[in-house]
Amino acid sequence: MAKISRRRALTLAGVGAAGIAGTGAAALRFTADANAGANPDPVTGAVAFTGAHQAGIVTPAQDRLHFVAFDVITKDRDRLIRLLKEWTAAAARMTAGQDAGEIGAVAGIPEAPPDDTGEAIGLPPCALTITVGFGPTLFRGADGRDRFGLAARRPAALEPLPRFTGDTLDEALSGGDIGIQACANDPQVAVHAIRNLARIGMGTVSVRWSQLGFGRTSSTSTAQATPRNLFGFKDGTRNLKAEQEELLREHLWVQPGDGPDWMAGGSYLVTRKIRMLVETWDRSPLAEQETIIGRHKGSGAPLGLSDEFEEPDFTAVGADGEPLIPTTAHARLAHPDANKGARILRRGYNFVDGSDGLGRLNAGLFFIGYQRDPRTGFIPVQRSLAAQDEMNEYVRHVSSGLFACPPGVTGPDDHWGSALFA
Amino acid sequence: MAKISRRRALTLAGVGAAGIAGTGAAALRFTADANAGANPDPVTGAVAFTGAHQAGIVTPAQDRLHFVAFDVITKDRDRLIRLLKEWTAAAARMTAGQDAGEIGAVAGIPEAPPDDTGEAIGLPPCALTITVGFGPTLFRGADGRDRFGLAARRPAALEPLPRFTGDTLDEALSGGDIGIQACANDPQVAVHAIRNLARIGMGTVSVRWSQLGFGRTSSTSTAQATPRNLFGFKDGTRNLKAEQEELLREHLWVQPGDGPDWMAGGSYLVTRKIRMLVETWDRSPLAEQETIIGRHKGSGAPLGLSDEFEEPDFTAVGADGEPLIPTTAHARLAHPDANKGARILRRGYNFVDGSDGLGRLNAGLFFIGYQRDPRTGFIPVQRSLAAQDEMNEYVRHVSSGLFACPPGVTGPDDHWGSALFA
Ligand code: HEM
Ligand code: HEM
Repeated sequence: MAKISRRRALTLAGVGAAGIAGTGAAALRFTADANAGANPDPVTGAVAFTGAHQAGIVTPAQDRLHFVAFDVITKDRDRLIRLLKEWTAAAARMTAGQDAGEIGAVAGIPEAPPDDTGEAIGLPPCALTITVGFGPTLFRGADGRDRFGLAARRPAALEPLPRFTGDTLDEALSGGDIGIQACANDPQVAVHAIRNLARIGMGTVSVRWSQLGFGRTSSTSTAQATPRNLFGFKDGTRNLKAEQEELLREHLWVQPGDGPDWMAGGSYLVTRKIRMLVETWDRSPLAEQETIIGRHKGSGAPLGLSDEFEEPDFTAVGADGEPLIPTTAHARLAHPDANKGARILRRGYNFVDGSDGLGRLNAGLFFIGYQRDPRTGFIPVQRSLAAQDEMNEYVRHVSSGLFACPPGVTGPDDHWGSALFA
Repeated sequence: MAKISRRRALTLAGVGAAGIAGTGAAALRFTADANAGANPDPVTGAVAFTGAHQAGIVTPAQDRLHFVAFDVITKDRDRLIRLLKEWTAAAARMTAGQDAGEIGAVAGIPEAPPDDTGEAIGLPPCALTITVGFGPTLFRGADGRDRFGLAARRPAALEPLPRFTGDTLDEALSGGDIGIQACANDPQVAVHAIRNLARIGMGTVSVRWSQLGFGRTSSTSTAQATPRNLFGFKDGTRNLKAEQEELLREHLWVQPGDGPDWMAGGSYLVTRKIRMLVETWDRSPLAEQETIIGRHKGSGAPLGLSDEFEEPDFTAVGADGEPLIPTTAHARLAHPDANKGARILRRGYNFVDGSDGLGRLNAGLFFIGYQRDPRTGFIPVQRSLAAQDEMNEYVRHVSSGLFACPPGVTGPDDHWGSALFA
C-alpha cells in the first residue's frame, strides 16, 4: 500500500488538477499527521488495523460512531470478493490517516473523479477503527436463495434474532448483508470513512441504513471514565473491559471449535436502535429513575452503596423488607447472575435524529453489543429484559442487526472475508 | 443565580436521593469544571453568556450543533414571558458549565423530577453558546392571528422568505415560532442544553423540528483554520470574521434606526437544511468539481491562484478565452461584487441523518447565516444562486427558517425578549 499521507495527497491534488505549485502551504494550517509517532496520541493518533482480532471491539471506545448496513446488489461472487479486497485496502489507508485512494495517482487525468472525497484532508487518524461483519442474509437471502454459495458456511450462532416482546422494529432500518462500524474521535473522520466505502462499493452494494452516534455510552477499558447515557446515568460500569483477558476469551472472542473455522478469533455483533422517550423520563422522579436502573444517578453505585465500582448486593433489603435493588431493575435483570453468567461487551452510542413530528426529540441509544455467541449472550439477556424490565415503559426498539465479525486481517495480502470465501 | 457547578450537583444528587455520603469521589474521575479559570481553554472553557450581542454568532464556531425550532402552544402571553425568563436563567447556568436547574434543591423531595437531566454531569462548559431568535409566526400566526399582541412590533426585515427556484421544502421541518441554536465542542453538551430547554418548556412550547450538526463548515475567526464541507472543499475562506469589526457593523449587527428598537444590536438568522447528493458529486471529475465551486479543492485558492486567501480575479481568462472562474461558479455568484456588496456571516454544520431509503446517505449542509437584513443579505444572494449556480444539480433545499435574534442579555435581571415584550 502506498504511504501517501492525507497531507501529501492534498498537495498532489492541488498540483495535478490545475498545474499550480505551492498549494502545500495551506496544508500546514492543519493539525499534523499524527500517524508518524511511535506512541500516538490516544485521541488523534492511529489504531493498528491488522491483528488477531479486528480493531473497534476492545479498542477503547471512541467518542463518535457512523454505522452502515449494506445490501449486496450484485449476484457475482467474484465481484463481491473484489470489493472486499478494495475495502480492506481503503480501510487500512484510512485508519492510518491516509486518503481512501491515491488522489495524486489520478490527478493527471481531469476526467477521473478523485479517489477520495476530500472532507478529511488534513485531519489526523483520530483513532479511527473500521470493523466489518456479515449478516445472516449474506449466507441465505430472505427468499431462501444461496446467492454466493455461502449457505453451508453460515455459523449456527448467526441464526436471525427472534422477535422479542414489545419489539417495534422497522424492517427497512434493520438487518443488512454487511455491517460496517466506523468509530473515531472526530465525526468528520468516521463519516468520511463510511462515505468512501459506500463510494467504492457503488454498483456492488447499496446503503440499507446508516446511523450516527456520539458520546459513547460504554467504557471498554478500565482507563476510561464511565460516560452517561441520555437517561443521565453512568453506562458501562460493569461492562466487559479490554483488560479482562480471561473474560474476553470466555465471553467475547469466538474460540476454535465453536463453529466454522473462519469465525475463530471473531465476535458476533448485535445492534439495536433503541428510542428513549426522554420527555417522559424527564418527568419521572429521581427516586423512580434510580429504582428502574437499580443504581444511583449521581455516583453510579448500585442502590444502597456509594461507590460506582462496588459489587451490587442483590440480597440487601430496605426498611420495608423489599429488595433495595428491585427484581425488575435493569442492572439486576442484565447482571450475569440472572443470565447463567452471560456477559456482553457493550459499545453503544447516543443518538438524536431530529424530532419525531409529535413535538418530541427523536433520541435514544444505538446499542452495540459484541459476544462469543448471541444464543448465550444477547438473546437470553434481551428476552429477560423485554419481559420484565421496568425501563421498557421508556424505550422502544426500532431497529435490529446481527453480524458475524471475522477475526482481524493479518497483513497487506489478507482481506476482509478471506477465510469465509476461501 | 446559584453558583452550583455540575460537579457539586453530582454530589448533591447522590446524597439527596438516597441519603448516602461519599459519592463525590466518582466525580473526580471527570474533567474538572473549566469554568473557574480567568483564561479558560477555548475548547473546554466557558463563553460569556451576557453582552451587547448574543454569543454564538461571532463566537469562534464550535465543532457541534444542536438546533431546535419550537412552536408556542400556549395562548397566554404571561406564560410565554415566564418561560423566556426561565430559559434565560437555565441558559446562563448551562453555558457556565452548571446544571440547567439545581438538582440539589429538589433532591430532598423524592417525588420531584430532577431539575437537570444529568447526561452532562461532570462535563466542562465546552464553549457552549445558546442563541435565541423569534420567527415571523410568533408575531402573526399562519392563520393571521396576533396571539401575543406582537404584530405591530414585527420588523419589516422579518417578512417570511420568498420561495426560491428549485426549493423542495418540507413545511414540517421549516419555520417555527422560536429558534434556538446550541453550539459546543462536545455534542453531549449541545444536546443536553436543547433537551433541558425543551423539558423546561413542556406544555408551553412543542418541538417543531431539530437538527444535529458536526464539523462546522465555516470559520468565523481569523484564528481558525478553514474546515471542509461534505463536497470536500474548504468552506468559510471569505466568510465574515469576528475580527472585521467595521464589516460586522455594516453587514451583521442590526443598527439603531434599522427597524424596531428591540432588535438594535441583534441579527437575523436564516437556516437552510441543504441535502447534498454526495454520491453523484463523488462521481464527477475533480476538474468539474472545481469549476462548480470556483476554487481549487486542495488549496482552497480561487481558480488560477495558489493561496487560499488570495482575492479571486474574476477577469482572468484561460487559453480558450473563457473566464477561469466560470460565471456559474458558486464562489463567483455568492461574492459581494455580484450582490451589491452583500455579506453574510456563515456558521453552518455538516449533517448525516442516516440514509434516504434509496441506497444513499442522507447528508448535507445545515446552512446558518447571520446578517443585518435578509432583504439585502440572504435573499438576493440565494435568488442568484437558485437561478444560476451550477451546484444546484447536486443540492436540494429541504428546510428553511428565519429568526430575529435580539441583542444580548445584559445581566441577571434581563431575559430573552425583554425589550420585545416590554
Ligand atoms: C436504552 C436502553 C438501555 C439503557 C438506557 C441501559 C442502561 C444501562 C445502565 C445505566 C446500566 C448500569 C451501568 C453498567 O453496568 O453499565 C446498564 C447495565 C447493563 N445493561 Fe443496559 N441499558 C439499555 C439497554 C440494554 C440492552 C438492550 C441490553 C442487552 C440486551 C443491556 C445489557 C446490559 C448489561 C449486560 C448490563 C450490565 C449488567 C451487569 O453486569 O451488572 N442493556 N444498562
Ligand atoms: C450545500 C450548499 C453549499 C455549499 C456546499 C457551499 C460551499 C461554498 C464554498 C466551498 C465556498 C468557497 C469558500 C468560502 O469563501 O467560504 C462558498 C462561499 C460562499 N457561499 Fe456557499 N455553499 C453552499 C450554500 C450557500 C448558500 C445557500 C449561500 C447563501 C445564500 C451561500 C453563500 C456563500 C457566500 C456568501 C460565500 C462567500 C463568497 C465570497 O465572499 O467570496 N452558500 N460556499
